[in-house]
Amino acid sequence: MTSQQPGQLITPPPLSILQWLNTDTEIHLADLRGRVVLLEAFQMLCPGCVSHGLPQAQSVHETFSNQDIVVLGIHTVFEHHSAMTPVSLAAFLFEYKITFPVGVDEKTEHAIPKTMAAYQMQGTPSTVLIDRQGYLRLQHFGRIPDLQLGFHLATLLAENNPHVADVNSQNGEPSQSDCDENGCVIP
Amino acid sequence: MTSQQPGQLITPPPLSILQWLNTDTEIHLADLRGRVVLLEAFQMLCPGCVSHGLPQAQSVHETFSNQDIVVLGIHTVFEHHSAMTPVSLAAFLFEYKITFPVGVDEKTEHAIPKTMAAYQMQGTPSTVLIDRQGYLRLQHFGRIPDLQLGFHLATLLAENNPHVADVNSQNGEPSQSDCDENGCVIP
Amino acid sequence: MTSQQPGQLITPPPLSILQWLNTDTEIHLADLRGRVVLLEAFQMLCPGCVSHGLPQAQSVHETFSNQDIVVLGIHTVFEHHSAMTPVSLAAFLFEYKITFPVGVDEKTEHAIPKTMAAYQMQGTPSTVLIDRQGYLRLQHFGRIPDLQLGFHLATLLAENNPHVADVNSQNGEPSQSDCDENGCVIP
Amino acid sequence: MTSQQPGQLITPPPLSILQWLNTDTEIHLADLRGRVVLLEAFQMLCPGCVSHGLPQAQSVHETFSNQDIVVLGIHTVFEHHSAMTPVSLAAFLFEYKITFPVGVDEKTEHAIPKTMAAYQMQGTPSTVLIDRQGYLRLQHFGRIPDLQLGFHLATLLAENNPHVADVNSQNGEPSQSDCDENGCVIP
Repeated sequence: MTSQQPGQLITPPPLSILQWLNTDTEIHLADLRGRVVLLEAFQMLCPGCVSHGLPQAQSVHETFSNQDIVVLGIHTVFEHHSAMTPVSLAAFLFEYKITFPVGVDEKTEHAIPKTMAAYQMQGTPSTVLIDRQGYLRLQHFGRIPDLQLGFHLATLLAENNPHVADVNSQNGEPSQSDCDENGCVIP
Repeated sequence: MTSQQPGQLITPPPLSILQWLNTDTEIHLADLRGRVVLLEAFQMLCPGCVSHGLPQAQSVHETFSNQDIVVLGIHTVFEHHSAMTPVSLAAFLFEYKITFPVGVDEKTEHAIPKTMAAYQMQGTPSTVLIDRQGYLRLQHFGRIPDLQLGFHLATLLAENNPHVADVNSQNGEPSQSDCDENGCVIP
Repeated sequence: MTSQQPGQLITPPPLSILQWLNTDTEIHLADLRGRVVLLEAFQMLCPGCVSHGLPQAQSVHETFSNQDIVVLGIHTVFEHHSAMTPVSLAAFLFEYKITFPVGVDEKTEHAIPKTMAAYQMQGTPSTVLIDRQGYLRLQHFGRIPDLQLGFHLATLLAENNPHVADVNSQNGEPSQSDCDENGCVIP
Repeated sequence: MTSQQPGQLITPPPLSILQWLNTDTEIHLADLRGRVVLLEAFQMLCPGCVSHGLPQAQSVHETFSNQDIVVLGIHTVFEHHSAMTPVSLAAFLFEYKITFPVGVDEKTEHAIPKTMAAYQMQGTPSTVLIDRQGYLRLQHFGRIPDLQLGFHLATLLAENNPHVADVNSQNGEPSQSDCDENGCVIP
């Protein structure tokens, strides 16, 4: 995991996107200044993306306000190109109930698409965090534990904070019946 | 989940502990000023505590520096008192590899022990977060998603921060062999 | 779950397969007489197939001898046809490490392909068990617990048994270090 | 895993039980002739017993008829004796919703209790299968995959079968709403 301190001022490369899904408008990083951005680079036929990378990104999308944290998927196909076309991707996003915007990374002459190459990603899933000022603060290939991702997101949200970010606690309510899978209630 | 803003200045009740395990010295909240404290109230025979409350607290204990976040367990037995004695608790902590300090909550005339009653907890597991200044900032009964707990911890650590807190990224490293359960590596 | 007794003598419809993957030769049910056959009907973009139907079929394929139980996948696409072409399927099987033979169900004028229609399946995943004599004995849509599937397989293997079927116990060996996730060893 | 063929005729040692829980009457193996018996040896503070051995035994108890398969727990404490008394065990069985009969293995002068020693078990959890004629057919320390356990149970039930054993399919029904975690329904 590469975690950057603010002083390093690394500006992330722009996104090179052929086509956006789950959104009607093109998305540019420059327009998201003031908010924290989570980029989730994935391939639809990457088992680790399906089992944890995408569910985690979807969970961030559902837990936090879009005014605080913007989640964007990037479909960075670097193998089996003919198997993962935008048509297949659209069906995949529908069936797996992924609702955040996803951009199709621009093909190049090489196997590795343009955005993926510009960020020098090692593979999929890769998670990138960009701070409110637009600087790249974390880039990680593979699984990030939820505890650590939540920590990083709050750290970035606490910087230059125009308002108090709020975490949605709707998933954290216990059930109320004696001892169950959540815990034991005082009778 | 009850999440407090700093302005409310709720001072948590002191801990009433009969006996500490996993530590040679008594622990008092007042001595932990300057650090964030996570209290995990549990019962050793509470399935939800065993399956998620205690593993989550242990994960916080292992992920963050003890100089930033102090994790304390409180064995708040409110049922089956004769089944969950300190002798049984000690064996339980050993077998389940719980390494943070655990205090045995003081018995009272009623079923509910003293610390649990003072905090007005609803049951087990209950998680309490105390900020660097010693104020109670969150008290929650039942499961807190890791993503949200990580967020809350970072929010409290970012306040009155004498140094930059650091998250231990050692668990986040991917394996490096093509596509596996973690993801797909660029060849 | 529809479980048939031997007396009912239901002969399953033949498979209508456009193309086989993971095998060099065409497979016909009639050639498998004497062995128990498990048919796993799936779609590559069906989340329940990816999370449990296919891993379960793969587990049967790896646990039992191919001389006792033959596992065959049928790619029964009834939605998003253009997203789940044989090219995509081949990449999917490779990435998800599915090694048993998979046949592409024959397209029809309707959404539902030919084999799926002939078996009157309700959806994917669907599991079909065929006995040694070639009769259909179980057809189930949705999740079958492993405990029950293992039970059904052994029941069919015990009938007209030319030799003693053998279950591969290689996954059942415990680790040998005191108490760990598998259990506690006598010192 | 030690799996015995019928010809070996190994008679299991009798159970030496101090006290039975979850039953009003003493249980003797000799009285269970004609049925298949699953013995689950466990300790209440053994993490592997709690996470998989006991849930698996409970699942067998709930899935099959008691007239076909009898599930018995044996509390074989070989460490932390004072932490796992019958009082603690009773609370444990209640909280973890274990409903099959459990016998407390008889203490000896040594750490290892009498039944555990007689069966020469390696540790906990250990699973023992006894056939309809009363012979020991499988003894295994550690995790047995559900697929294999279901297979073994059916194999033993198919022998000397006075009636057709029936697996309870109630847990295998799919939900009926389009694509969900169980699968995709034909619209």
